[in-house]
Amino acid sequence: MKSWFKSIENDQESTSYPLEKVLAELTFNEDGLIPVISQDYQSKDVLMFAWMNLTSLQETLQTNRMCYWSRSRQAFWKKGESSGHWQTLKALSTDCDGDVLLALVDQEGAACHTERRSCFYLKFIDKRVQIISK
Amino acid sequence: MKSWFKSIENDQESTSYPLEKVLAELTFNEDGLIPVISQDYQSKDVLMFAWMNLTSLQETLQTNRMCYWSRSRQAFWKKGESSGHWQTLKALSTDCDGDVLLALVDQEGAACHTERRSCFYLKFIDKRVQIISK
Repeated sequence: MKSWFKSIENDQESTSYPLEKVLAELTFNEDGLIPVISQDYQSKDVLMFAWMNLTSLQETLQTNRMCYWSRSRQAFWKKGESSGHWQTLKALSTDCDGDVLLALVDQEGAACHTERRSCFYLKFIDKRVQIISK
Repeated sequence: MKSWFKSIENDQESTSYPLEKVLAELTFNEDGLIPVISQDYQSKDVLMFAWMNLTSLQETLQTNRMCYWSRSRQAFWKKGESSGHWQTLKALSTDCDGDVLLALVDQEGAACHTERRSCFYLKFIDKRVQIISK
């Protein structure tokens, strides 16, 4: 764990830190990426899991539109730009060791490229895995 | 995206596949790990984010107790074994490309090592990041 996050973990509730400091302390992996969990801000269903680099995170914070980094295309991925399925950022947090982001989003239409609302449509049930949404 | 997940994405709702087939098709990274999002099965709050290897996933499915792989300790991490903060698995799913797991869990006590309920206690608010729980 990065020492800066360790150093603040006993600070009191409501203590705050400059955004730029936190951005500088986040852990990006060897590809310069941080994982992002995107959750419906109303239903609280987890919609998708993707990655951002620092620039796409800054873009997301500036525009309040989710902007990921596509590992397959090696390009910025403004969610909704091609599909119309925009995600408006409602709240963002990071965890105790600053190596993952959690975004609460207002999802237009489907989050998944299959047109399902959530990407998590494959459910483990006993000794099978089942498709649980159309 | 792995072609097997692509090949099933248009299958009808309720179609199911053998567990062993899905386990064989999941994407584990170069370290043999897959990310896991753990979510409170009642409040739907995201509690933590961690990693599993195939063995810890199989252990989790067999015991219904969350067993991660600790990257810092390079060891199996039966959540709760040292803290008493067990996580009972209530439901598990994977996403459209089979490279991340979502676990709904019954969390005893705190998920976070700081004794906070959730690890995601650092919230981005305007140009600051604030601790939002005790």
